[in-house]
Amino acid sequence: MSIYLNDIPLPEALLRIQNSLERIGQWEVLGVEEIPLDERAIDRIVAEPLWAKISSPHYHASAMDGFAVRSSETEGAFQTNPITLTYGTQAEYVDTGDPLPGWANAVIMIENVEPLDDSDSPAENPRNPAAIRIRGAVPPWYHVRPMGEDMVATQLVLPAGHKLRAFDLGAIAGCGHSMVKVARKPKIAIIPTGTELKEVGEPVVPGDIIEYNSIVLAAQINSWGGEAVRLPIIKDDFIAIKKQVLGAAQEADLILLNAGSSAGSEDYSAKVIESLGDLVFHGVAVRPGHPVIFGIVDHNRSKDYVSTEQNSKKTNNKPDSVKTGIPVFGVPGYPVSAALTGEIFVEPVIAKWLGRQPMEPVEVEATLTRKITSPSGDDDYLRMTVGKVGDRVLAAPLSRGSGVITSLVRADGITIIPHGSQ
Amino acid sequence: MSIYLNDIPLPEALLRIQNSLERIGQWEVLGVEEIPLDERAIDRIVAEPLWAKISSPHYHASAMDGFAVRSSETEGAFQTNPITLTYGTQAEYVDTGDPLPGWANAVIMIENVEPLDDSDSPAENPRNPAAIRIRGAVPPWYHVRPMGEDMVATQLVLPAGHKLRAFDLGAIAGCGHSMVKVARKPKIAIIPTGTELKEVGEPVVPGDIIEYNSIVLAAQINSWGGEAVRLPIIKDDFIAIKKQVLGAAQEADLILLNAGSSAGSEDYSAKVIESLGDLVFHGVAVRPGHPVIFGIVDHNRSKDYVSTEQNSKKTNNKPDSVKTGIPVFGVPGYPVSAALTGEIFVEPVIAKWLGRQPMEPVEVEATLTRKITSPSGDDDYLRMTVGKVGDRVLAAPLSRGSGVITSLVRADGITIIPHGSQ
Repeated sequence: MSIYLNDIPLPEALLRIQNSLERIGQWEVLGVEEIPLDERAIDRIVAEPLWAKISSPHYHASAMDGFAVRSSETEGAFQTNPITLTYGTQAEYVDTGDPLPGWANAVIMIENVEPLDDSDSPAENPRNPAAIRIRGAVPPWYHVRPMGEDMVATQLVLPAGHKLRAFDLGAIAGCGHSMVKVARKPKIAIIPTGTELKEVGEPVVPGDIIEYNSIVLAAQINSWGGEAVRLPIIKDDFIAIKKQVLGAAQEADLILLNAGSSAGSEDYSAKVIESLGDLVFHGVAVRPGHPVIFGIVDHNRSKDYVSTEQNSKKTNNKPDSVKTGIPVFGVPGYPVSAALTGEIFVEPVIAKWLGRQPMEPVEVEATLTRKITSPSGDDDYLRMTVGKVGDRVLAAPLSRGSGVITSLVRADGITIIPHGSQ
Repeated sequence: MSIYLNDIPLPEALLRIQNSLERIGQWEVLGVEEIPLDERAIDRIVAEPLWAKISSPHYHASAMDGFAVRSSETEGAFQTNPITLTYGTQAEYVDTGDPLPGWANAVIMIENVEPLDDSDSPAENPRNPAAIRIRGAVPPWYHVRPMGEDMVATQLVLPAGHKLRAFDLGAIAGCGHSMVKVARKPKIAIIPTGTELKEVGEPVVPGDIIEYNSIVLAAQINSWGGEAVRLPIIKDDFIAIKKQVLGAAQEADLILLNAGSSAGSEDYSAKVIESLGDLVFHGVAVRPGHPVIFGIVDHNRSKDYVSTEQNSKKTNNKPDSVKTGIPVFGVPGYPVSAALTGEIFVEPVIAKWLGRQPMEPVEVEATLTRKITSPSGDDDYLRMTVGKVGDRVLAAPLSRGSGVITSLVRADGITIIPHGSQ
């Protein structure tokens, strides 16, 4: 029984993840799909630069209810020197948004016009007079939204990697598109393992653990832009776990195996990954969460292949280096460790697969309410409540217990104490 | 033809919305529903305080793989003075997470124990020895997660009004719930009106406007926790719009009528609302967006009632004050005005209906890159790009055009110039 894990530093672990995914050609956007412009497009990541197909407005549009005119023909008009323009050739009624006649280049608001039926009687229908009298000049493009004011055809509207918001959908539609190309959502299978686990809602007796890590991980994954698939609980059994991993590998882009990531007698995650491919690391110097595992399994192994192995817990014909495959994380079982493993390790992989920047924490400078000590050697993630007292921002550490999910519920932030500091 | 609207100040408008909704008993959470703890619960608002049903852990659990012991029986053990404990009555093997035997109150890690089969031979099965030899004492509750370490039965876990995050689902499941009571999503119908409107994807000729406000409004509503329903485009026709409003009022909690909110010849929103109930205001002193309308329509009016009115554009038997009804916003047609109307007027109503705080903007202090003038009288919402240059945060104003949706796409923030300032 090996008790100790070989903890590697966090940057080394992240680099190994990147290198492994590069080796199997998966350190890039996984795929592109074209989707319609509706609410489901929100928060999706634009996969290709989006260029305006048409200008917006796509014609010179009146910005007011009034009369389209030639600006030059209004020159010289003022209060005591009215000018009369003939309807149809020199003036034409337009509502807001109407296209300007080809000959017109300005609009006079209807309030500033005297519509006439003949030189001295006001028009019966002010929107269809014989002529209009004006007492003021207008410059070219006055009260006109010129074609392309918002977007000009062929202009870049959104860059690749952009996360779609409500307004963006309007801009995409406004420049003539009815669909948008986005990165496809990575499919991430979550396999809860543990003989002691009970589904939410089942009755529990001492020793039973309510399985909710898969709920938290799935919610995290979905909020980061992935598509989580929660698989049923598997007991601590090497063959059963291996079968489930191999099954998930046929469809998923990434597998999270939770828990069994430690080095106890019933912790099979590392052994399963090793038997199906490459174990890239087992143990990272972060707290909580250090017994995290990463590996690549060969998804081309058929089920027959497994069945021939069923009697041997250690496979002898393991390939030395898997060139294609499906990445697998072994996620620690304690709830806080599991959630932080999601944030630290899974989120950056999803970001890469979507072509967006990884999430960056909002940083706040605060004074600690008390001294904190930290065992050197690990990057220590401390949950904190943060509050403003007068002019000072104070941060108070919460429970460090990796089983205390309420410490995340109550936390306003995380302080990272780098390895080496105490 | 009435050209001018009667603009009221923004705080007055928000107060009238509140008063009108109070009068019809709708200035409160609209309803409660119980939903399962899965990804769909994310961002829902907790409707009732949530109390722990069971403690977590719900038993005294070992925090290590090792042997459960009585702390008192380890007293006096040290390197040169080992103590031997009989297996079964004084020591029992436990995996991490296992319940402690009733008589035990501490755990010694397996690495710090010598499992024995008899006084001088190590145990064949280290987890099932005849006795263990220890060379160190442990205090009570050492390596034990005591019952209730995370949550104690009956304790408050989440208050009403809390927006659910991934961790929260874990905490709810961990304290014995499989469902959570949340505020039901307000159903908000969006009716695009305008003879010139074309659905996204339809070919356009000069004068046509691509209808995308409903997409932007629907996306905003969904992100604020509502459930948007986009109805088909209706032409500028009083009777047709009225029928659609009345139809929507049978199912929706709120109706957005977009556009026709101005006072032009083909702007029917105000007239439709007036004919079906109370017009509460028409015009608010904010830019862009001032021709916004609010009213309450009587949803009990049957379709027969409408048909008897079909020949009269002005109803004479309008009730003086509607005691029940469905609120309706007339949303201005320009895209930026429409989106800001959503943020300024619709979001706070949704917040109230969900029992959460309205969204608060993140405030940033910045230096303007140039002078801005603002017509006094209106609260002026200016779109800005914000960037850091050296130590200074600079804000540059973007296009003020209310048709320029890309100004929202490019904006990092909004500066509000209150009425009165220039």
